[in-house]
Amino acid sequence: MLTSKTVNEFINELASSSPAPGGGSVASLAGALGAALTSMVCNLTIGKKKYAGVQAEMESVVKQSEKLRSSLTALIDEDTNAFNAVMSSFAMPKETEAQKNERTAAIQHATKNATVIPLRVMQLCEQMLPFVRLIAEKGNVNSISDAGVAALMLHAACMSAKLNVQINLGSLLDAEFVRKTGVQIDEIGERMERECQNILRHVNESLNTYQ
Amino acid sequence: MLTSKTVNEFINELASSSPAPGGGSVASLAGALGAALTSMVCNLTIGKKKYAGVQAEMESVVKQSEKLRSSLTALIDEDTNAFNAVMSSFAMPKETEAQKNERTAAIQHATKNATVIPLRVMQLCEQMLPFVRLIAEKGNVNSISDAGVAALMLHAACMSAKLNVQINLGSLLDAEFVRKTGVQIDEIGERMERECQNILRHVNESLNTYQ
Repeated sequence: MLTSKTVNEFINELASSSPAPGGGSVASLAGALGAALTSMVCNLTIGKKKYAGVQAEMESVVKQSEKLRSSLTALIDEDTNAFNAVMSSFAMPKETEAQKNERTAAIQHATKNATVIPLRVMQLCEQMLPFVRLIAEKGNVNSISDAGVAALMLHAACMSAKLNVQINLGSLLDAEFVRKTGVQIDEIGERMERECQNILRHVNESLNTYQ
Repeated sequence: MLTSKTVNEFINELASSSPAPGGGSVASLAGALGAALTSMVCNLTIGKKKYAGVQAEMESVVKQSEKLRSSLTALIDEDTNAFNAVMSSFAMPKETEAQKNERTAAIQHATKNATVIPLRVMQLCEQMLPFVRLIAEKGNVNSISDAGVAALMLHAACMSAKLNVQINLGSLLDAEFVRKTGVQIDEIGERMERECQNILRHVNESLNTYQ
């Protein structure tokens, strides 16, 4: 499993001439990092006298961000597995007509799965946003930069996952799925762009007051 | 060392109630991931007949992106060490006047170092951009989404590092350093924003043609 490798090994494998892991797994990892930072800010707020008033809210957020972190972490490996399945389907024999049909069906099936996984990453990143906004507005102000980094990581994760959906949509024959998914990723992408900018504007204002 | 931990352990430590590793190390990691993806796209282009014309260029890029990747990876640990040094300086005794002066000087010294490290991350991310542009324009088109993810990761890394510079500038007494560094990070941030948008526009155009 990729997540059982050391950080160094993961980065080395990424740089290598093997196409997997690639941008899809990096997208999931960036999402997991954003969720983990959100949990960290909650954990650095909980139990502090100054923040007693938001203790319950922070405890509720950390529960949810930990759940999303776990899902996003699992998708690091799932994306690479999905990519490898696409590669395997392309390697299937294509001599007889029956083999050709079987191969095409396998490629379509595997590619659809490789589209659904980054789409899931986009959805999970979007689900994180209310929590990131909350830690930016009410979390420990000493960690305000970490709240901003969480927003930036989730933004990069979501937009990276979008590129991975797009490149896979290009090889799918199911026109209705392609159309619907295309609309879906555009909508998530726009909401993500807007909300991350709002959060980052707030972080920058807080940083100016902090100084 | 953080980079000797597994990806899972790293994400777990990040989420914990310990303030380090935090957003600063995540910024460096995101930068290293962006550099690694750039190297990957070069490696997936080199040796392919279709791309024989850009072989030399790709070989030159991969050398440089690997150097920057190594520097960015080292900064993952350096940022956490710098943060821990700030914490240690705050824990110094402050009973006598001499102790107070010594403590203040140590805090200032450690905080300046914690500012210089994310500034270095910003500079290294900016140095990556010409290489990302090149792989987006001339690299293996099957990896065009990876070139886009590289740009998104370097952007998030640079802007995350900027937030870490800003929060530390807030506690520095050296007004001239604060002023100069403030100008520097604004300039790098603006150039990064502009150039990443250009690269991503190109990636999106290529993705549309690809489909």
